[in-house]
Amino acid sequence: MAVVSQWSAVRAVGKEAAVAAAPVWSVDPRTGKPREEVAQEATTEEVDLAVRGAHAAVAALADRATRAALLRRAAELLDEAGPHVIEAADAETALGPVRLTGELARTTAQLRAFATVVDEGAFLDVYIDHADAGQTPPWPDLRRYKVPLGVVAVYAASNFPLAFSVPGGDTASALAAGCPVVVKAHPDHPATSELCASVLRRAAAEVGLPENVITLVHGFDAGVALVGHPLVTAAGFTGSVRGGRALFDAAAARPTPIPFHGELGSLNPVVITEAAAAERAEEIGAGLAGSMTLGVGQFCTKPGFVLAPAGETGDRLLKSLTAAVSDTAPGVLLDHRMRDAFVAGVAERVALPDVESPVTPGAGGEHTVSAGYVTVPAASLAAEGPHDLLLEECFGPVTVVARYSSADEITAVLSRLPGNLTATLHLAEAEGAGTAPGGAELLAALTPLAGRILVNGWPTGVAVAPAQHHGGPYPATTSTSTSVGATAIERWLRPVSYQSTPAALLPPELRDDNPQGLPRRFNGRQEN
Amino acid sequence: MAVVSQWSAVRAVGKEAAVAAAPVWSVDPRTGKPREEVAQEATTEEVDLAVRGAHAAVAALADRATRAALLRRAAELLDEAGPHVIEAADAETALGPVRLTGELARTTAQLRAFATVVDEGAFLDVYIDHADAGQTPPWPDLRRYKVPLGVVAVYAASNFPLAFSVPGGDTASALAAGCPVVVKAHPDHPATSELCASVLRRAAAEVGLPENVITLVHGFDAGVALVGHPLVTAAGFTGSVRGGRALFDAAAARPTPIPFHGELGSLNPVVITEAAAAERAEEIGAGLAGSMTLGVGQFCTKPGFVLAPAGETGDRLLKSLTAAVSDTAPGVLLDHRMRDAFVAGVAERVALPDVESPVTPGAGGEHTVSAGYVTVPAASLAAEGPHDLLLEECFGPVTVVARYSSADEITAVLSRLPGNLTATLHLAEAEGAGTAPGGAELLAALTPLAGRILVNGWPTGVAVAPAQHHGGPYPATTSTSTSVGATAIERWLRPVSYQSTPAALLPPELRDDNPQGLPRRFNGRQEN
Repeated sequence: MAVVSQWSAVRAVGKEAAVAAAPVWSVDPRTGKPREEVAQEATTEEVDLAVRGAHAAVAALADRATRAALLRRAAELLDEAGPHVIEAADAETALGPVRLTGELARTTAQLRAFATVVDEGAFLDVYIDHADAGQTPPWPDLRRYKVPLGVVAVYAASNFPLAFSVPGGDTASALAAGCPVVVKAHPDHPATSELCASVLRRAAAEVGLPENVITLVHGFDAGVALVGHPLVTAAGFTGSVRGGRALFDAAAARPTPIPFHGELGSLNPVVITEAAAAERAEEIGAGLAGSMTLGVGQFCTKPGFVLAPAGETGDRLLKSLTAAVSDTAPGVLLDHRMRDAFVAGVAERVALPDVESPVTPGAGGEHTVSAGYVTVPAASLAAEGPHDLLLEECFGPVTVVARYSSADEITAVLSRLPGNLTATLHLAEAEGAGTAPGGAELLAALTPLAGRILVNGWPTGVAVAPAQHHGGPYPATTSTSTSVGATAIERWLRPVSYQSTPAALLPPELRDDNPQGLPRRFNGRQEN
Repeated sequence: MAVVSQWSAVRAVGKEAAVAAAPVWSVDPRTGKPREEVAQEATTEEVDLAVRGAHAAVAALADRATRAALLRRAAELLDEAGPHVIEAADAETALGPVRLTGELARTTAQLRAFATVVDEGAFLDVYIDHADAGQTPPWPDLRRYKVPLGVVAVYAASNFPLAFSVPGGDTASALAAGCPVVVKAHPDHPATSELCASVLRRAAAEVGLPENVITLVHGFDAGVALVGHPLVTAAGFTGSVRGGRALFDAAAARPTPIPFHGELGSLNPVVITEAAAAERAEEIGAGLAGSMTLGVGQFCTKPGFVLAPAGETGDRLLKSLTAAVSDTAPGVLLDHRMRDAFVAGVAERVALPDVESPVTPGAGGEHTVSAGYVTVPAASLAAEGPHDLLLEECFGPVTVVARYSSADEITAVLSRLPGNLTATLHLAEAEGAGTAPGGAELLAALTPLAGRILVNGWPTGVAVAPAQHHGGPYPATTSTSTSVGATAIERWLRPVSYQSTPAALLPPELRDDNPQGLPRRFNGRQEN
């Protein structure tokens, strides 16, 4: 499948053609060498063109059945293009074909899951209240459902070239909601992005939709122009605190502010009780090593901060952690900038007083990094100080183990943590069963810290289930929304109520006879 | 009932006692004269104390039954205090006992409605997915519900001293969600605010809750300090674009940004078709006069902009509008600053070229204003220019009638309108029945402009019904939320998922056996 920038034609005919456009290169992180020039950075004029094209496609997306068909056809075509997609993604990200095959399966499953959400229509959140003169004040006939916001800007993630990028959850949920999407590609995988965008545009054409329901733009400046465009109505973002906050600030500062759903960063704290460590120190140590080094530590749900007991049981746990981490082969990060940031970030942490590094993480070979972890007495984190650096996410295969000597130390450290995507609790069997004390209290203490709370598991791996919540208090997310799971669609909708509107003019979703068979709340009663 | 500032005791013992506190006066808008000193402006230290007190009350609000009891007891006590409350509110706002009696009934009905919402528990939005190894990737056991955000700041409105102020919808929905509230009083009715706060605090004490589940602060600086306080987790606001936007910006600029649900301003456009005017010009003219002068034009849903036909049928409509508006007695606005702004705003509009004022609005007596309206050719509004002033809300009893000569002129003007709370369509019977063309197209054209669309009615009066949506595109609201109706509770909640959590530790809301009988989505099926 040829990888051709959709902007080639625009440039050839536009007046920008004479200006040297900034090239977008696909780079091999295994060597640091450019692979091929795959596109050009979009100018402000091209971003405007992309957004206007998307805006013109809003009406075409109004039909729910067509949206479901688009999502299903996109999944089919991505499955068909699978070998090409995985080859392109592996060449640019070094994530490996096994992981990428799994990510593609997850991505197409997600597209199909949103097709089911669209079919069912519960997301329309239909409320119908007939007129009622007995209320205070009296009620007129009122009928509410949700309508799409309009063009959505999606900022793709570095670490998921498929599931959180061009064909990922933000795009799938926005299209499901009826919102055309303009994706700002992540510079770490421009070829994969072009390939996926062409597949999605082909799917649109095949189901009779304008290709512009999905458009791709490249370039930092294009991303800034996108969030400021007057016709962009909402944005989704997965990335760093710095980049995400800058875009959030830009979205809030617009003459007409727009919702900005950003997933920025997360420590993903883990609390291991003394009894849990006593019961299964080796299992927990090995599990932690597996989770923190998975995908070379590049998951947003990587457990980056662990509260483990200080004594002998804790030592056992760390022994198995040391063994498993030492056995982990060096890995290639997504790009060399990240590698530099990892090496520098680790060095800064290791240099802190009272910090030890049983397995020192850092530079591996010329293009790789090696996994490791550091320890610190939990008491060092109880108050503000230089150790606060350990409470910031460090992207890559490293975790911080804070060793506590008392329950009070756990509480003190938890109170100092920022918001998280996840928080994990490892309990002994009796603590989990409620026959030994403490489990419920710890669960309650973790709940304010995160959007997903796990018991006796590991946070990496985010199931695309209706009950999923992938989001959490800032900086984990900039809103109360999720970017994974059925309810991610809620981000791209707004309610509208129709008052005293003649039946002949009502949208079919709001008619008494419910021709679309929607679940709804009808005169105070839920109808399925 | 004595009106005593809750801060008196704090001041008497605090080190601030020596500093002269800024007094808060209740003022009679009928005379412009101060009535009594009812409180002092809160210092930054006092705001901190209020927020900390509220934060300490979060745990006490966790029990849903207690929250429902609080809301019901608050309604009872407000009903009991009714005569005092109405007397105080009338003395400060000049809204009159009839309107205020209705507003109190609406306020207590709203408190009771949220008690029912709390009892039912649908707002918890429970999703339970059992583990499923057949999914891609496999699902662990996941259970999601919504938890309260924490302390909520409420900025009270000038124009609803009860229903959108201390005991109003923001407070009721936040308490229903489990969030303690700190209200920034509106300076136009401080005595009413103190009285209502004391009633709510008494209700809290009577149901065994800390009084600090609701606290009142006064003063502009206190409002600024409140939105910036680290323990404040969300804010609700009803007021002007200028004030609301400043607070929105402050909320977004915090180190940890918080949701800011502001209702700022709305033109509330009305489109009257030629056929509708032909059918019932007099009825529409009189109805418009009634709606735009209701409450001296101080409703956020006042129809402030009307597209009416240019020809003879339009003349008939304006004739009846003129008659009805001329018959309207001058009224007292909420304060003299508003009166000045109204008089100046009207003068600026009347001075525009091509603008006529069949009934010139403006200063009435020394403390009153008189109602009126202006007309302008719709063509003058088709492009940017000085007439854009007519597309900005002017608070008070005035409306702008833009007279159109073609359907294209309607479309052109609609495309230039900002976001609105409401948009209203007046259709002839055949247009509403779908037997004459145009109705559905106009309804579709109005939908992007507002959160509530009305046909053949008037937007003033907002029913507290589940299907209500009181919000709309910016600047109508700063979020996609509603501040009226059952779904207003969603603003103060965030989802949390529990993964693989032992049954013994799960909150009762998330247990398979559903001990609280909650509606929920259980393995993909809605259970009522």
